[in-house]
Amino acid sequence: MGEVFENSVIKEIINRYKFIWSIDYAMGLLEWDMETYMPKEGIIERSIANRHLSVLEHRLLLDPELVSLVEKAKSIETLNDYEKGVVRVLDREITKAKKIPESLIAELREVTIRAHEAWVTSREKNDFSIFKPYLEKIVELEKRMADYLGYVEHPYDALIDYYEEGWTTKDVERMYDSIIPELKSILEKVMSDSRYPKCHYLESYKYDITKAVEINNRLLDILGFPRTRARIDVSEHPFTINFGIRDARITTRYEGYDIKRTIYSAVHEFGHATYELQIDESLSGTPLARGVSMGIHESQSRFWENVVGRNFAFTKIVGSLIREYFPELKNFSDEDIYYYINTVKPSLIRVDADELTYNFHVALRFRIEKMLIGNEIKVSDVPDIWNNTMEEYLGIRPKDYKSGVLQDIHWSQGSIGYFPTYSLGTIISAQVGYAIEKDLGKKLGDIIDSRNFAEIKEWLKRKIHRFGATYAPKELIRRNLNEDVNPEYYISYLKNKYL
Amino acid sequence: MGEVFENSVIKEIINRYKFIWSIDYAMGLLEWDMETYMPKEGIIERSIANRHLSVLEHRLLLDPELVSLVEKAKSIETLNDYEKGVVRVLDREITKAKKIPESLIAELREVTIRAHEAWVTSREKNDFSIFKPYLEKIVELEKRMADYLGYVEHPYDALIDYYEEGWTTKDVERMYDSIIPELKSILEKVMSDSRYPKCHYLESYKYDITKAVEINNRLLDILGFPRTRARIDVSEHPFTINFGIRDARITTRYEGYDIKRTIYSAVHEFGHATYELQIDESLSGTPLARGVSMGIHESQSRFWENVVGRNFAFTKIVGSLIREYFPELKNFSDEDIYYYINTVKPSLIRVDADELTYNFHVALRFRIEKMLIGNEIKVSDVPDIWNNTMEEYLGIRPKDYKSGVLQDIHWSQGSIGYFPTYSLGTIISAQVGYAIEKDLGKKLGDIIDSRNFAEIKEWLKRKIHRFGATYAPKELIRRNLNEDVNPEYYISYLKNKYL
Repeated sequence: MGEVFENSVIKEIINRYKFIWSIDYAMGLLEWDMETYMPKEGIIERSIANRHLSVLEHRLLLDPELVSLVEKAKSIETLNDYEKGVVRVLDREITKAKKIPESLIAELREVTIRAHEAWVTSREKNDFSIFKPYLEKIVELEKRMADYLGYVEHPYDALIDYYEEGWTTKDVERMYDSIIPELKSILEKVMSDSRYPKCHYLESYKYDITKAVEINNRLLDILGFPRTRARIDVSEHPFTINFGIRDARITTRYEGYDIKRTIYSAVHEFGHATYELQIDESLSGTPLARGVSMGIHESQSRFWENVVGRNFAFTKIVGSLIREYFPELKNFSDEDIYYYINTVKPSLIRVDADELTYNFHVALRFRIEKMLIGNEIKVSDVPDIWNNTMEEYLGIRPKDYKSGVLQDIHWSQGSIGYFPTYSLGTIISAQVGYAIEKDLGKKLGDIIDSRNFAEIKEWLKRKIHRFGATYAPKELIRRNLNEDVNPEYYISYLKNKYL
Repeated sequence: MGEVFENSVIKEIINRYKFIWSIDYAMGLLEWDMETYMPKEGIIERSIANRHLSVLEHRLLLDPELVSLVEKAKSIETLNDYEKGVVRVLDREITKAKKIPESLIAELREVTIRAHEAWVTSREKNDFSIFKPYLEKIVELEKRMADYLGYVEHPYDALIDYYEEGWTTKDVERMYDSIIPELKSILEKVMSDSRYPKCHYLESYKYDITKAVEINNRLLDILGFPRTRARIDVSEHPFTINFGIRDARITTRYEGYDIKRTIYSAVHEFGHATYELQIDESLSGTPLARGVSMGIHESQSRFWENVVGRNFAFTKIVGSLIREYFPELKNFSDEDIYYYINTVKPSLIRVDADELTYNFHVALRFRIEKMLIGNEIKVSDVPDIWNNTMEEYLGIRPKDYKSGVLQDIHWSQGSIGYFPTYSLGTIISAQVGYAIEKDLGKKLGDIIDSRNFAEIKEWLKRKIHRFGATYAPKELIRRNLNEDVNPEYYISYLKNKYL
């Protein structure tokens, strides 16, 4: 795009922002290292460094000169889209930093450290009462957070917007209202279709980890994972982190059984990494050099994981690698592998859920969060509501807290308002798949068969990635997919695939 | 030691310093990652982050409130040793930061980036004239640096003190005057002793790298490398870096031949790591939580590498591992291995030099640096002086620049005044060995035979490590070894060992 920042106020803002960017960059590396290579006891001083760097970043963000430059820029009428983006993103961050008192941040950090321990113990002992007081405190603090941030209709709006700029409780409700009944009907039909197995031999097949590492690397190479700008390592929970736009780190894990788990983690994280690696170079080191929201980020990871990765054409590639590295599995046909990778069954654990049941899990959490933040229910009501909703949605009921209300780490970390972005991303991923096929005039399966993944990446770059955070999520989709976020594509995708 | 900071001014200084410490911590991790795992293109944005973090650190160091607190603390008479140490270290840093203009730092950074490239090309083409103008510029900037820093007798004093607090050109001259003639005489005798081979079969023996990795890990475990606070990785040039006192990272390299190189790199770096890992916990996050100087640091690495590592008792351990992992070498006796590890021969390359010839290499660089900074010679004179001095010291003469004046990276990095700390560290390492044997009433060889390395580490912790930067180098040695730095121990050590 060449040089995109011309206004002198914006240039001055970006120069000052580079210090904040650098601290952010460093904190990213601290986090990556903590999850991958850090010796255990290093955590003590790592936390101290982290805390001080956060405070420094906060101070730099509220630096009066930066704040007044941003204020000044808001009234300039001749800014181009990128310049407007810089102002929008920084104004949002400064406003948040101003509204939320440091004491609340500190209190939340304090309680979440202890809440995490309590959550672990609570799970181990299958005793919700251990975690309950912490969750109560967290909900209380999140309500205060919502009050500080402000909202028009529902306090939960403030929390959603924190993760997904411009989205509201109503938006999320509308989204679930349009997909839940459809998902139910598709799921019912698939459950009576014997082609989709409820369990599969390969789920319990024990694999040699060194071979799985090679398979992941082969697949990443096929996808065009740029090794001079990216790497894959191992961590307990798979994640992606980018330092700038020329250094992306993804991780996966190797459980030693059910090999699709490690493969599809890697493909998922590849999607996250590719997003930020394809941001335009002219945005490097600016507030725009990031994924614009959790939902858009998740749309990219789930696009590669599901829309591409679980496509028959892609599972053929996976299957050929599995047969090559594990000759004892040579009798598994492409179809066997496809149905192994696309097993469908109502299950209790969100992270193990298939494409058809996944959103029920997320919708359940949204329902509960909204009622908690809206004072409609108490924390003590949550386990029963969880179990009843699970039965209503998927016809199954957790037998213990670990497979029910205590399964996710999010609440113990104080993340309330985050879950809906998982569904949003999933829905957008199908809309992206539709738009690609329409634009390129080809079926995704054919592109995958030809292994021309560069064509897909090029499209994603042109339509979404290169802009970074230039446009707010809704505007990004509207401008580039020529339509608002529309769950119908997701439903058609599932119908086409499963029925 | 318990809580050692009681004065409220000092406590306030330390609180403010924690931000500087955190930036330093992060920059350490950035550097470690750059040398180990960073994807190649990451360097572009890594440099930007680094530059901004350096500027932030510089600003925080010159923050008027911190500066005035340190000024205030200088006049408090009731400070304990640790509190005085905090004032001494920070006063030194602030003074340097004040004296050296940012423009000089920037110019030096600028020229060294280009100088490095020129140095590489100059080596490749065996053409000193390519590097010459850069070295001229660097020498000019270093002279200006010396003028800014100030000195009493010789401008080179200012540069030495930069790396080795309290040391002067005279100190270094005195050191070399007392060791060079002795070293010459020992070397002459050893060269006519057929037990010390000039080359050894194992130098060209090609090893399997995965086995060498295991040997290094076995050795580190025997030495008590604390895996919950430390790790070893691979990099092009071996180095050690500590983040705080609970996370040390060492590296080594695997050339695939002459296995002692990788093993003794690992043992050398183990010495560096152990120093900072054994700093007292009460100093964590303060200006004292670091090795006090390059010389003291090098004394620790060379103590483990040479005084312990090249001791017959230790080479027996190395030998047993070599025979275990490479059964085809099972006929090499403990004596064979000892003489392999202790090969002596005049050679042209410093980093490959043995214990007897090493200091000639460093003395040569010191001589040249002193004359350059003192305006006694020009850069164009350096290659001839280098070659003549090499002939005078070791009786050999480089045939090209790569094995002569262009062999070290240091000058291209603007490091002038650094080399003498290598000799200083080597000398102190023998003095430490002497003090341990005297204090514990045991021979080092016996302690090594019993594999009770904890006893050695405990002694080092008590006498040197735990203090971090509390005492300036000379005072640290005087207080804890009950004597000034004394090269006689080094000479006796060599005589005992080689004659």
